[in-house]
Amino acid sequence: MKLKDLGEFGLIKRLADDISINDAQVVAGIGDDAAAIKAGGPKLILFTTDSLIENVHFTCSTITPYQIGWKALAVNLSDIAAMGGVPKHGLVSIGLPPQTPVDFVDSFYQGIKDLANKFKVNIVGGDTARSPQLIVNISLLGEVEEEYLALRSGAKAGDKVLVTGDLGGSAAHRLAGKHLPPRPRVEEGRVIVRRLWPTSMIDISDGLASDLRHICESSQVGAKIWSQKIPVSEKTRQMSEQSGKDFLRLALEGGEDYELLFTASPRRLSKLMSEIDVSMTVIGEITDQKGKLLLIDKEGKLHPLESKGYEHFKENRP
Amino acid sequence: MKLKDLGEFGLIKRLADDISINDAQVVAGIGDDAAAIKAGGPKLILFTTDSLIENVHFTCSTITPYQIGWKALAVNLSDIAAMGGVPKHGLVSIGLPPQTPVDFVDSFYQGIKDLANKFKVNIVGGDTARSPQLIVNISLLGEVEEEYLALRSGAKAGDKVLVTGDLGGSAAHRLAGKHLPPRPRVEEGRVIVRRLWPTSMIDISDGLASDLRHICESSQVGAKIWSQKIPVSEKTRQMSEQSGKDFLRLALEGGEDYELLFTASPRRLSKLMSEIDVSMTVIGEITDQKGKLLLIDKEGKLHPLESKGYEHFKENRP
Repeated sequence: MKLKDLGEFGLIKRLADDISINDAQVVAGIGDDAAAIKAGGPKLILFTTDSLIENVHFTCSTITPYQIGWKALAVNLSDIAAMGGVPKHGLVSIGLPPQTPVDFVDSFYQGIKDLANKFKVNIVGGDTARSPQLIVNISLLGEVEEEYLALRSGAKAGDKVLVTGDLGGSAAHRLAGKHLPPRPRVEEGRVIVRRLWPTSMIDISDGLASDLRHICESSQVGAKIWSQKIPVSEKTRQMSEQSGKDFLRLALEGGEDYELLFTASPRRLSKLMSEIDVSMTVIGEITDQKGKLLLIDKEGKLHPLESKGYEHFKENRP
Repeated sequence: MKLKDLGEFGLIKRLADDISINDAQVVAGIGDDAAAIKAGGPKLILFTTDSLIENVHFTCSTITPYQIGWKALAVNLSDIAAMGGVPKHGLVSIGLPPQTPVDFVDSFYQGIKDLANKFKVNIVGGDTARSPQLIVNISLLGEVEEEYLALRSGAKAGDKVLVTGDLGGSAAHRLAGKHLPPRPRVEEGRVIVRRLWPTSMIDISDGLASDLRHICESSQVGAKIWSQKIPVSEKTRQMSEQSGKDFLRLALEGGEDYELLFTASPRRLSKLMSEIDVSMTVIGEITDQKGKLLLIDKEGKLHPLESKGYEHFKENRP
């Protein structure tokens, strides 16, 4: 069997099934946006890593070196945000062709440093190597109070499903040969965990449908989503129209929006949602129909919500 | 200017000079084997990362998938050992071609898991992606008591220079088209920091000459090394003879031995060295001649000790 037959999620499941962590220090391990670890202090440590590989995650014709650096850190910040945490310290591991102009490297690092400064993240080290193509891996440490830790696994039937910001923008830009620099929702994540006590949370990297499935699988529940409630900006609608694509499909399957998808109790929401200054939308509800994800269209008809988000080793980015 | 003109150490210096860390939490940042961070608990957190890239750090013809996994974790364990710490939690980020057989991936992970189990390290997550060649990045968290933290920067004139184990074995095997799986000196590092209070420590990844220079630069001192005291095994001597190479050159410049190089006060050593059950050899002495590294040959003649260890972006692996 080849990896392309197993797929990314098949591989992760295979590896995770075979690793048993027997350590009371590890509060959350494989299968969340970041690991959460007790380290003797008053807060949990969050620990995450993400790589960007040239011609896999990006091509240099549609993204500047500055934007590559920015994005490499942004995807990691987003993982910390999805756990309800505050990012603190990063390591940058980079592979570069020897022919790379030093100016390119300077711009790339400037993108990392500007975003790091914005969120008061220290770059405390890393690793450099020669490589046939640009490869960047960032590892990030964050911290979170144990009572605010948000996992994928706590969603309950009756909880509302919410999303920050709007969706499909990254995919619409990609179709137009452009890059939309992600804005990680770190402050928003903090407000959400401190005020709304989310029962589960994830960041939208693979796509709304796929990431909602991750929450439902971890929480052993189902969900229904109203297509008309999914927030899509006017610009994204226009861009997807120009590309001849359905904006709803981009919002559901496009991925890389790095918005936060979370669930919360309706009681808590009705009391507090109006007081909170974070752009967010209720798009659906958690059900007790384990593993069943439904999309309700504008006529009220039910459709199975397929998870066609991006999966590595298979070729399926819309 | 291109990267190949700047070189790896030029690049690291350029990046490090431009990053100022203004955070009392960061005890050691760029320029040591791992970052050391205060996180509110009784111990410091150590944080390190290292990548292996196919056809740069290894070729699949001379190393098995199991050994690649082993090595990817070993180089990180060695970084934690060089700080005097205990490794705790790792993240594995991997890029693989879709055509990779699943058996290959299983063997690769088995190599990581076996070494992780040996040192009670938890694999708490990671990241998988498609990639044209095999790329693996491991990030590792460790911990160390503040009083045992070993940096590169504390060597003083009069200190002895010591090395664990023997050198040149990795290079001799490489010349013979073989791979010698590294054995990270984690337990040895713990004994050294607890009993000998080293004034500086580093692991030998680039090569003895190059890594001794890192200590001398960080500590603002010089050093002299007796060529006849450098420990080289009988097997390494034979293998280098068969390859027509000088074993001393392999020991000085070969790199990838992952032994610990450290300095300690002669008083402390004379009192305790005989009581300690770790294979180690005194090979030289720290001097006050800042930046001057000398090799004393068997006739007692002095030679400048050149740092011809491996440097990425330049082509110079012996």
